[in-house]
Amino acid sequence: MRIVIALGGNALLPKGAKGDSGEQLAAANSAISRLEPLLKQNEVVLTYGNGPQVGNLLIQQQATGEVAKMPLDVLDAMTQGQIGYFIASAVSMTGLHSATLITRVVVDPDDAAFQNPSKPIGPFYAAKPETGNGKPYFMDAGRGYRLFVASPEPVKIREHDAISALLDSGFVVIAVGGGGIPIAKNGKGLEAVIDKDRATSLLAGEIRADLLVFVTSVDSAYLDFGKKTQKALRKLSAQEAAHHMAGNHFAEGSMKPKVEAALQFLRKGGKKVVICAIEEIEAALSGNAGTTITP
Amino acid sequence: MRIVIALGGNALLPKGAKGDSGEQLAAANSAISRLEPLLKQNEVVLTYGNGPQVGNLLIQQQATGEVAKMPLDVLDAMTQGQIGYFIASAVSMTGLHSATLITRVVVDPDDAAFQNPSKPIGPFYAAKPETGNGKPYFMDAGRGYRLFVASPEPVKIREHDAISALLDSGFVVIAVGGGGIPIAKNGKGLEAVIDKDRATSLLAGEIRADLLVFVTSVDSAYLDFGKKTQKALRKLSAQEAAHHMAGNHFAEGSMKPKVEAALQFLRKGGKKVVICAIEEIEAALSGNAGTTITP
Repeated sequence: MRIVIALGGNALLPKGAKGDSGEQLAAANSAISRLEPLLKQNEVVLTYGNGPQVGNLLIQQQATGEVAKMPLDVLDAMTQGQIGYFIASAVSMTGLHSATLITRVVVDPDDAAFQNPSKPIGPFYAAKPETGNGKPYFMDAGRGYRLFVASPEPVKIREHDAISALLDSGFVVIAVGGGGIPIAKNGKGLEAVIDKDRATSLLAGEIRADLLVFVTSVDSAYLDFGKKTQKALRKLSAQEAAHHMAGNHFAEGSMKPKVEAALQFLRKGGKKVVICAIEEIEAALSGNAGTTITP
Repeated sequence: MRIVIALGGNALLPKGAKGDSGEQLAAANSAISRLEPLLKQNEVVLTYGNGPQVGNLLIQQQATGEVAKMPLDVLDAMTQGQIGYFIASAVSMTGLHSATLITRVVVDPDDAAFQNPSKPIGPFYAAKPETGNGKPYFMDAGRGYRLFVASPEPVKIREHDAISALLDSGFVVIAVGGGGIPIAKNGKGLEAVIDKDRATSLLAGEIRADLLVFVTSVDSAYLDFGKKTQKALRKLSAQEAAHHMAGNHFAEGSMKPKVEAALQFLRKGGKKVVICAIEEIEAALSGNAGTTITP
């Protein structure tokens, strides 16, 4: 079976962790050891987030004017190298062979998202930084000012053919880090952040995956999440999922983008999406944990 | 023909450049446009150096204690992402499909190099830095104190099988950046820098390349280089090259490691090595420029 698994940021850098290399490697080892049986029996692509790591690079490069600062597309590429290496190290511990690909994702420079930067990234500031270079800093949920960047729709995974070739040759493929490096069709890098779940869904369709898995920090999708009446959703049709989404049951920036990405994959011919915590992934694939969405 | 081409640091980051992303991308575009005919007619792996880029990351992470500092193996991975992305962007301009692989290289943790750190990296200091954490800082050629790290012998390119699979599938492969991320056989990252030319030679042998090319800032190997009597070496047998090397005709840290790496490839069954400037690569491959070494 061909499976694409999106590892949430939490699986690779636990909340509150400083993000040193030992912590990140330990988190990757822990996540991959949970996935080992799956990796050994299937063709698997692992995708992953990079938010905290990009934030750390932004802090570092703002700390000195001595060397050139890199734009966001290049920082994405650097964190793909960093986190991809940690995951590759963890996969090697299982004895499997992996390939870690720097991955670019084509977006449309005319995407309306560029007129409406909606994704906060990097450190929090008590006031709008004066060195903002005219970039948009806004208050983020009352926690401080942050840089907001565009989050355009992914159009094409530039490396999808290389990913397919590596899967065909038997490698565990590590790719699409941080949602991929945003580029225009002509190859030019863009100042944006692509939603990891959407990019992962796009890849799953492009490489005709049988199954798409979102590994999250919550154990499934819920109705009335966080309320006394909350109720785990074990099995859903695409229609039911769309209905609950319209009823505002899924939180923005958390469960909603995953369900949206799931529906997108199913619309493009995907057969099954699972949303689950990494500890329960095997039970979830048998339908005994997590949330399974089918057409 | 299967060709491995090592791009010298100078081809990707001209001396004196600050290293901002525009400069690096322009340098990559210039280098790749020279290689375009070769890339279109052959299976090609491009390897590359990362010295200035790692130096810049060392400066940035020493500038603030706010976020976790990464060890050298992780910095290597980050620069592979950074530079690999620039090269991939340049390859895309030719219409060819590329794959940029994060590459690890196995070394022996008992390599004598670890007892004798010989490779200076990162920024120059007027005095030994107090925050050296017991790391070895030595005077580098009278220009200032620098961190010296081990430069062990590469034993195996961990991703050589993925590189072969991608070549077989028709991709231009971008790999072994900075000589590769040094790891022990068990996968543990090591504080070291692997010589790019040696790692490239090792890869060329492992993937049974027909031709190994070292792109350098000088136009060929010379006898009496820099003296009035200097004489370009156009064609050499392995035996002649070894003889001139024993006669100290090739400079340490410059031409000598390239000739050593060339001889290693030829000893392992390689048929041809070319050392040349990127402007003359096509003439050099026809034997009309550069230096060609054969068994």
